[in-house]
Amino acid sequence: MSLLIKNINEIYTANSENQIIKNAYILIKNNKINEIGQMKQLENKNLKYSNIIDARDNIALPGFINTHTHAGMSLLRGYADDLPLKEWLENKIWPFEKGLSADDIYWGSLLSIMEMIKTGTTTFVDMYFQMDKVAEIVKKTGIRAVLTQGLIEEKDGLQGLEKAKDFSLKWNNKAQGRIKTMFAPHAPYTCSPEYLNKIKNIAIDNDSAINIHIAETKNEFEFINDKYDYTPVQLLDSIDFFDVPVLAAHCIYVNDDDINILKEKNVGIAYNPLSNMKLASGIAPINLMLKKGINIGFGTDGVGSNNNLDIIEEARVGSYLQKVKNLDPTVINKEDILKMLTIKGARAANLNNLGLIKNDMLADIILINIKDNTRYYPHHNNLSNLFYAGSGNDINTVIINGKIIYHNNELISIDSEKVYYEVEKRSKILAQ
Amino acid sequence: MSLLIKNINEIYTANSENQIIKNAYILIKNNKINEIGQMKQLENKNLKYSNIIDARDNIALPGFINTHTHAGMSLLRGYADDLPLKEWLENKIWPFEKGLSADDIYWGSLLSIMEMIKTGTTTFVDMYFQMDKVAEIVKKTGIRAVLTQGLIEEKDGLQGLEKAKDFSLKWNNKAQGRIKTMFAPHAPYTCSPEYLNKIKNIAIDNDSAINIHIAETKNEFEFINDKYDYTPVQLLDSIDFFDVPVLAAHCIYVNDDDINILKEKNVGIAYNPLSNMKLASGIAPINLMLKKGINIGFGTDGVGSNNNLDIIEEARVGSYLQKVKNLDPTVINKEDILKMLTIKGARAANLNNLGLIKNDMLADIILINIKDNTRYYPHHNNLSNLFYAGSGNDINTVIINGKIIYHNNELISIDSEKVYYEVEKRSKILAQ
Repeated sequence: MSLLIKNINEIYTANSENQIIKNAYILIKNNKINEIGQMKQLENKNLKYSNIIDARDNIALPGFINTHTHAGMSLLRGYADDLPLKEWLENKIWPFEKGLSADDIYWGSLLSIMEMIKTGTTTFVDMYFQMDKVAEIVKKTGIRAVLTQGLIEEKDGLQGLEKAKDFSLKWNNKAQGRIKTMFAPHAPYTCSPEYLNKIKNIAIDNDSAINIHIAETKNEFEFINDKYDYTPVQLLDSIDFFDVPVLAAHCIYVNDDDINILKEKNVGIAYNPLSNMKLASGIAPINLMLKKGINIGFGTDGVGSNNNLDIIEEARVGSYLQKVKNLDPTVINKEDILKMLTIKGARAANLNNLGLIKNDMLADIILINIKDNTRYYPHHNNLSNLFYAGSGNDINTVIINGKIIYHNNELISIDSEKVYYEVEKRSKILAQ
Repeated sequence: MSLLIKNINEIYTANSENQIIKNAYILIKNNKINEIGQMKQLENKNLKYSNIIDARDNIALPGFINTHTHAGMSLLRGYADDLPLKEWLENKIWPFEKGLSADDIYWGSLLSIMEMIKTGTTTFVDMYFQMDKVAEIVKKTGIRAVLTQGLIEEKDGLQGLEKAKDFSLKWNNKAQGRIKTMFAPHAPYTCSPEYLNKIKNIAIDNDSAINIHIAETKNEFEFINDKYDYTPVQLLDSIDFFDVPVLAAHCIYVNDDDINILKEKNVGIAYNPLSNMKLASGIAPINLMLKKGINIGFGTDGVGSNNNLDIIEEARVGSYLQKVKNLDPTVINKEDILKMLTIKGARAANLNNLGLIKNDMLADIILINIKDNTRYYPHHNNLSNLFYAGSGNDINTVIINGKIIYHNNELISIDSEKVYYEVEKRSKILAQ
């Protein structure tokens, strides 16, 4: 299997020099990038390839990484909005979720995966339940994912730990290596330090990383502070939780000491601006954390609190929100966005060989047509047009692990009509 | 000329009862809505119409109103981002704008109008220069607009007032009534109280309203405060500026007394969240102003500081920004958004008979297909899906003043290829 992408208008490599290669080609062999060059060099080469894409009028970027989702929640899109958090959770979200069957989660996650592929996300980090079902779809659809079975102490207990271990043994590195697993205690306010410690030890034994929500709300911060006299980050640090690689979602209520801990322990952060805004959780001090060199990616969170999975919109709003919070328009510029969506997101999610257009990296690449769309005119700067004017809808081609998954508005491996039918039918019953 | 829109899935009327009419039709005669009813009533009627749209699987809303733009600025899209305000203006925006010819503004505004129509904006309020050119395009393309020739005292002086008067006499109520004009002093920091007073008197003489920027930045607030010992709003009130109808853009730096003045004088507000975030200007106290009953619409501002004209994205982010600023997820709910995008925007812009789907209102209507798009599944709530998940890209049909302007991805009266060519050519020369 080899694929040549030729006539690329510009390649945005996402490397530390912000390198752009104009009028270029990419040769993919199996699941990796094999060669990158300029079109004028191509004539003198005798490249062999089994498939070809003419990317005239397209720019190429590394596929985007959505560092925090709950894919199964797409069945809740539009089910409850604009409510106080407690009422939203207790009267709407939790009762609805209680009714979710494994098959409901299968179809909901498939709808989310469709939306993510179409909008340029090639890797997503998911935390939910019935993750076996999600793993099956990831295998089938060709997307890349970090799958983490959520653990709430009261609900899942010790039995949950065994199930999570089994899930990890069954799925880690499967689907041609596209699936990675992590252990996922829900949060420090739903898991005791003892429970968290057990999970940490299981992660060490299984050479695994951990995915967790930290300091998402003021209530959580106050609850932990009252109970343990620690901030959530310090509580976790006190049990050496960060001795394993950790991807922490939100981190809104963190102080300077917390940020130092996160940096020192190389914790990755998932920044979920739209969810944090819509639920009125607060604004994370992302600017300070970025300046410290912490690896931060963007996350959409679940559709119930977003309400879409468009990671470009997430990035744009995430950048603008930090600009206005800090009253400084230079914060999170477009090159920062590119890295957070790709290489920094990959690092935050503990993924190697991913997030750059560079030889020997995994071949996750997206193409965007810059010709037939008002939002890309004029062409002063294509990256600015993509991140500050464009939308996930503008993605033309998605290649994951060397395979074409989406091209010219066509999803290769998914029957959209069937997904819409199942999602609609199941949501109606669940809402009753 | 009569047009029947039949089989509409849901009509969102935007009236004060948040009325939704399911499985319905709308009959348009000439430029007004003539009749609204349910499909089951249609059979027994013998309606006459010259044109028909089958809106199966579509919802209908009043066309959106963009209360603050500088359409000609689309030539600057992506030209300068992420810079400190002073550097952005003085080194990039102003030098570029100095080079703009009347024809450049013609083509830039046409690109903006294309983008606005495609994303569901049926009326825009514009403040820029060379407005004769913009009026010509508005006439030609079929969009509705409030056109206001910007006045900066040092640059335009008394001669500018005469030109603005001429423009108003020439264009107000023209293009089948689609064009309204206002007078437009740029801001209290670029126009003295004496100059502002002259403009107010001209507006009174011409029975016209006024469009102005107020309290956009902290610098402006401090400048006015130091010079006059007033807030910007109080300075204007001290010269009875609000005796004429005023549409004020931004109003970020306003205190409780200012808000009382704005309410008492029935000033309309254009809320521009994305521009205010991107330029790091600040967050307007929209929640307080809405609660007072002030008419507030959404505005995109110019493409140079946004960088697109998607009013749905503006509304979504504007709502979420107020939720997080106030740490209250109930602020600006989806019904508020609908009204701000339509009837309240119309009132803020001093426009009558516009912004509702109701008999005898001007026939500005948009249709959105809720079937072939991941973001509209499941269908718990179509309004939530449109505002919280959807995008301006999802608009299927745009009717303005009773005429079909955009339908099934086709712009009826605009040659897109020609616009792209001209915009690209001119921007390249201007950027040199």
